[in-house]
Amino acid sequence: MSDSTAELARLRRGVVDVIPEGELEAKLATARREKRPLRVKLGADPSAPDLHLGHTVVLAKLRDFQDLGHTVVFLIGDFTARIGDPSGRSETRKPLSVETIRANAETYAEQVFRLLDRARTEVRFNSEWMDAMAASDFMRLCGHYTVARVMERDDFSKRFREGRPIGVHELLYPLVQGYDSVALRADVELGGTDQRFNLLVGREIQKAYGVAPQVVMTLPLLEGTDGVQKMSKSLGNYVGVAESSDEIFGKVMSISDDLMRRWYEVLEPESDVPRDLAAGRIHPREAKARLAEGQAARFHGAAQAAAARARFDERFAKGGLPSELVETREIEAQLPDELVLPALLTEHGLSKSNSEARRLIAQRAVRINGAVVTSERYHPAGGELLIEVGKRRALKLAFR
Amino acid sequence: MSDSTAELARLRRGVVDVIPEGELEAKLATARREKRPLRVKLGADPSAPDLHLGHTVVLAKLRDFQDLGHTVVFLIGDFTARIGDPSGRSETRKPLSVETIRANAETYAEQVFRLLDRARTEVRFNSEWMDAMAASDFMRLCGHYTVARVMERDDFSKRFREGRPIGVHELLYPLVQGYDSVALRADVELGGTDQRFNLLVGREIQKAYGVAPQVVMTLPLLEGTDGVQKMSKSLGNYVGVAESSDEIFGKVMSISDDLMRRWYEVLEPESDVPRDLAAGRIHPREAKARLAEGQAARFHGAAQAAAARARFDERFAKGGLPSELVETREIEAQLPDELVLPALLTEHGLSKSNSEARRLIAQRAVRINGAVVTSERYHPAGGELLIEVGKRRALKLAFR
Repeated sequence: MSDSTAELARLRRGVVDVIPEGELEAKLATARREKRPLRVKLGADPSAPDLHLGHTVVLAKLRDFQDLGHTVVFLIGDFTARIGDPSGRSETRKPLSVETIRANAETYAEQVFRLLDRARTEVRFNSEWMDAMAASDFMRLCGHYTVARVMERDDFSKRFREGRPIGVHELLYPLVQGYDSVALRADVELGGTDQRFNLLVGREIQKAYGVAPQVVMTLPLLEGTDGVQKMSKSLGNYVGVAESSDEIFGKVMSISDDLMRRWYEVLEPESDVPRDLAAGRIHPREAKARLAEGQAARFHGAAQAAAARARFDERFAKGGLPSELVETREIEAQLPDELVLPALLTEHGLSKSNSEARRLIAQRAVRINGAVVTSERYHPAGGELLIEVGKRRALKLAFR
Repeated sequence: MSDSTAELARLRRGVVDVIPEGELEAKLATARREKRPLRVKLGADPSAPDLHLGHTVVLAKLRDFQDLGHTVVFLIGDFTARIGDPSGRSETRKPLSVETIRANAETYAEQVFRLLDRARTEVRFNSEWMDAMAASDFMRLCGHYTVARVMERDDFSKRFREGRPIGVHELLYPLVQGYDSVALRADVELGGTDQRFNLLVGREIQKAYGVAPQVVMTLPLLEGTDGVQKMSKSLGNYVGVAESSDEIFGKVMSISDDLMRRWYEVLEPESDVPRDLAAGRIHPREAKARLAEGQAARFHGAAQAAAARARFDERFAKGGLPSELVETREIEAQLPDELVLPALLTEHGLSKSNSEARRLIAQRAVRINGAVVTSERYHPAGGELLIEVGKRRALKLAFR
């Protein structure tokens, strides 16, 4: 196997789409010939700065490019974030102040550099070119794309069909994102599979401006701890990169065995564990603990991850639970859709009343598998749950 | 009848829509109370600077406003014209150079002042504010309108349904037009009934920017000399404001009796002729000649209009035709859809061959009812046609 074949194989591993097929190979060959690194773009929305495991799928692929000598261009969409939804219709797209964006961008970058090589990363802001753009040039940019093509985007066509409002400015965001690729001279752009459409717009806009179009690479979306929805901060089903090793370890331990297999596939595609698991050479609980330890180690190092595992086992598996442990139940019934925590805690004597339980949650005194709970509703995915209230009360649940 | 009732009646005469009903009256009352004129906007596209009778319908209404002391804001959309269709898909929306726009605007203004009162007209260009607008403010502007509402515009929804491309920039034009009303603080905006949608967008955009929304007034579209299509330069069915009195007179004489009734209604709503015509007190030919003379007089004065009528009658009605007149036929058959002029001229001996006939047309030697013919195909609308070739050959046709 030649070096270039190995390089290509590594870059393609775990990737859903490479569009167009074959062009990545050509770009790599050109870069080698011209002795210049490829410019590999990732766009980030600075409205929600907390990175979680879902983001790390793309970041790990960017790291592959860096390890092979290429440059990552980490683009912060501050121009777009400042505009948000000026009509105020969308809560999730509130226009952000310059200060908020700057603070978010710093948080973001700091977290990103737990995975990326700082020396091979260029951090850019699209305000650099978009602030200088006149309305007339912006209209010309819009002339390079048709309404029908923008409306092909799944979420737009769905909202349009259902009669839900789409602000005209929303159609323009993909064009701005495309123009960013012109300004950055991106050779490759990465994103989740849900970004496929936007990344392809970039190719068209680059062509319209006489720039070589980028190769588009999409990566799988990671399901959250509930095993159903895409991991997202707003759904509360995430494992945050900035969380403690105990929280990361505990959250991974709470996922179902099926989801564990999926996370191995997406987060640790080179691991041997899934094969051993399928062959019955390793117990699912041990496999899950290794995944939990591995993910904690990515952000806190091997020593801290091992310590988190030890603490978890002590509290949970080895029976070293607090003295006032109220009850341990094996729930054999079908996995419930959700646990209403105040009712559950009160029912099992961990709180005196629903209102006390709510107060405890608000005070961040309730943890599930070591991770602080902030919502009154919890969506278990199977596996084992240790619900702790303060330091001395706990409830252990195990779903079949 | 009070002054204000008479004022309102005059302004409403011949208008198709006043939106919202009642608001014009309120604006007039406010203007009277505050002793300030209303600002009445008309937008013009500087891509086709030749004004024709179709345009005069709106201009005459603007003149009504001026005669009552109000200010007309004549807006030249130079910003929009400079952008055109940057993708080059549309031939009719080619981006125009600054020089072309300036020249067109001068031609336009010169023609407009044959009808408007120069002292009560403000000529403005939307580049004044649009050139200074940043892309970010432009996106905010776009946030004040939804895709669904823009797509309600008849031509957009039709093209979208039929899968014909609409550039994203095209959606933005109505928003720019709406913002112009913000910048100009328009109290009223006028347009043809085909502009109803765009004029209403102006109201919404004004509201979003905290400006009192304009009253929208739409006026009927004038059918061209063919009696079918809207009058337009590109269809060749127009009577140009800048044409000679002979051309105007002759073109009006070429229209059908039905179309004549319609033109009276739209162009001379206060004339008694239609009533006399219905009562049989006046012959249709005389009615048509009065309309023709009246329209020629609007742009060339009464004396020139009377002279044009005399010349026409001499050449046509009184038999004072050139010596080599070849033939006079009364065509009793159904009115043809079109006359193919080279074939017709050759058939009746006015040219030796089709190719000679084509050359004569190209040399502007062929006239119909006194107006030079530039196309090889002519769409008769009924009435009388005198086809002249050079100064000495002619053919007279009369359709039933």
